[in-house]
Amino acid sequence: MSELKGACIIGQSGGPTSVINASALGAIRTALDTAFITKVYGAAHGIRGVLDDVLYDMDYEDSQELEHLRHTPSSALGSCRYKIKDPDADDTDYRRILDIFRKYDVRYFFYNGGNDSMDTCNKISKFMLRAGYECRVMGIPKTIDNDLFGTDHCPGYGSAAKYIATSCAEVYQDARVYDTPMITVVEIMGRHAGWLAGASALASLAGAGPDLIYLPEVAFDMDVFLRDMTALYKKSGKVVIAVSEGIHDKDGKFIAEYGSDLAQSKDSFGHAQLGGLAATLASVVKRETGAKVRGIELSLLQRCAAHEASATDIEESYAAGAAAVSNAVAGVTDKMVGFERVMENGRYSCRIKLLDLSIVANTEKKVPREWINEAGNGVLPPFIEYALPLIQGETALSRENGLPRFARLKKVRAHRL
Amino acid sequence: MSELKGACIIGQSGGPTSVINASALGAIRTALDTAFITKVYGAAHGIRGVLDDVLYDMDYEDSQELEHLRHTPSSALGSCRYKIKDPDADDTDYRRILDIFRKYDVRYFFYNGGNDSMDTCNKISKFMLRAGYECRVMGIPKTIDNDLFGTDHCPGYGSAAKYIATSCAEVYQDARVYDTPMITVVEIMGRHAGWLAGASALASLAGAGPDLIYLPEVAFDMDVFLRDMTALYKKSGKVVIAVSEGIHDKDGKFIAEYGSDLAQSKDSFGHAQLGGLAATLASVVKRETGAKVRGIELSLLQRCAAHEASATDIEESYAAGAAAVSNAVAGVTDKMVGFERVMENGRYSCRIKLLDLSIVANTEKKVPREWINEAGNGVLPPFIEYALPLIQGETALSRENGLPRFARLKKVRAHRL
Repeated sequence: MSELKGACIIGQSGGPTSVINASALGAIRTALDTAFITKVYGAAHGIRGVLDDVLYDMDYEDSQELEHLRHTPSSALGSCRYKIKDPDADDTDYRRILDIFRKYDVRYFFYNGGNDSMDTCNKISKFMLRAGYECRVMGIPKTIDNDLFGTDHCPGYGSAAKYIATSCAEVYQDARVYDTPMITVVEIMGRHAGWLAGASALASLAGAGPDLIYLPEVAFDMDVFLRDMTALYKKSGKVVIAVSEGIHDKDGKFIAEYGSDLAQSKDSFGHAQLGGLAATLASVVKRETGAKVRGIELSLLQRCAAHEASATDIEESYAAGAAAVSNAVAGVTDKMVGFERVMENGRYSCRIKLLDLSIVANTEKKVPREWINEAGNGVLPPFIEYALPLIQGETALSRENGLPRFARLKKVRAHRL
Repeated sequence: MSELKGACIIGQSGGPTSVINASALGAIRTALDTAFITKVYGAAHGIRGVLDDVLYDMDYEDSQELEHLRHTPSSALGSCRYKIKDPDADDTDYRRILDIFRKYDVRYFFYNGGNDSMDTCNKISKFMLRAGYECRVMGIPKTIDNDLFGTDHCPGYGSAAKYIATSCAEVYQDARVYDTPMITVVEIMGRHAGWLAGASALASLAGAGPDLIYLPEVAFDMDVFLRDMTALYKKSGKVVIAVSEGIHDKDGKFIAEYGSDLAQSKDSFGHAQLGGLAATLASVVKRETGAKVRGIELSLLQRCAAHEASATDIEESYAAGAAAVSNAVAGVTDKMVGFERVMENGRYSCRIKLLDLSIVANTEKKVPREWINEAGNGVLPPFIEYALPLIQGETALSRENGLPRFARLKKVRAHRL
């Protein structure tokens, strides 16, 4: 291990979660407390802040105020969806990043995000290596989608799963309240992987969860769905259905796109946008049964509901940020922090492990087929056993006026050293 | 006051809330502890359970399990939307109710609901009086809409308001996270009154709330809306808009219905159903700005999110149920329990008052025009001062497996005494 002194940049990228700031806090706190790190910068809107030279000097932030980051949803430093180019095709961005790193004497770069962000991280790391600029680059995972390869689970997933399970448990109570038929369709995020939709099954531990659950891992067949749904409907007149936004038919066509076809006409400003998957399925189900049907889209709420975050997730997210910094200072580079699940005497715990960025980047982890039932309309006990430990514990979110007290950062622009 | 001994029936009606069961618990517990009440029945699905002779005997319920009702959303006994006829036109239902009352020796009837339920309550009360059947009838208010006349506020409103304010505060964080333009439209319940949509303004106390808020109390003008929205959009590229589902234009046409016109075609299974108000406005806003727009409908979540219920609301809801029973036993009849706000040295407290059922039934209470800003796109400090005390305090909801622990009633069918 070589000692490396210099500044660090912490950036947040991609779709936010309710705990991404807990990871940022873990990284910021650890960096501020590390003698080798001379200065701690936050990048405004991830890599865009680096490219645009908009960095915040974390020295100006009040320590107590920073603490509120642990329970503040969304990316406090700002996020971006900027896709960095391949350096072999165009290295403009990388040369610019190198300039900024030199300008601020940045020797540590911590990037907190999902698949795309790990790809960005990986490319920057490799470029710096080739350029001979000594810099340690670490990825901190984050995604409610839980689809990052190599880690048991991702920071952000547990909180989203807890919100989804709680909301589905509550909706289940409400959706069965009348003496008249009622069908409810709950649309949950997850374009390619069904981790989030599967989490709705946890609601069954709180009384009852969705009767039917559809994940993108299994091709969706509308006829089979209508048959299964109708069978349940005939029994009790009540059906609660959870669907992943990414469900598609065997030809790969998203069911959400069926909406346009159903309306049999398209208009100039995009008919499909008028209703998402929940609305589309609600329409189909209504036509089939004539029942009162409600489509509920959990939308942004599932990724920003800090008030229902999982204490386990908050703690692990913080630990992931902290581990990125402490490992980098100890000499590690070019890695993403990952989680390893340890089960001892039926008790869950989580250990940090390090994964090569090149392995993690751009590989998606899906729900194993054997965790989904044969009919493809529900999840099996192994899924529940996997997800349940991740939603344990309630948030210690501070309140003011009965409302969440979120962090209010000063965001003082950094000056060249 | 005359002593009256006999059984009681407690029924729940109309759209559920996250605290209607707290009122039921207050009524059930007080009734079980009252010597004059010989038997406590719960009506399955409100007045339908009385008409169909489906009553549950509360003696069979475990006391500890009943306690979970305090934090269980939706109507645990089941609800209905059955509209009882005018007795002058057709008194079949009333004669049936009288038969059931006689069969079970029912001398107390407690009905928990909104406007329509108070109307039902009133009609039953007057019929029993005319029939010479001694029976005390009390209404217990309930509605997230907060539109019941004569009471300062309604049980259920505070919890829905708290959920809406918290969710809007969280969404605000998320909706401004990117460095690219983004407009968010949040659709909130409230067909005729804007109490719920106005509650989104409380989010401003948690950092920031919606930039524009529209209530059904003021006619909505699409051109003025687009002008105001565009002005904000040009400043920061980010706008968060909260709208009441009931907003309508000066001719009384619901803006939600504009959806069909916008798509310029209707199809056999109801185009408008494909997208609600949020989707309709999102579509209009997207066309106007070209920005990324997200429509979020809080849907059922706002009325069943027990995990974010207001402790003040839970306590007051319980008290309302308890007061209905204790007052009836003391000789009161033909009244609805209401709330009177007491402010002493800036401290809020709430006192029970009793209102004539005939006054309450079928009158809607709207947000005073002077609590809404002149432009009709926001609420003023008096609204905040009114709503803020009602969302104070966090729920003591029990958890199991990290999930809410809701009541599991036995629901044993009652037998004739």
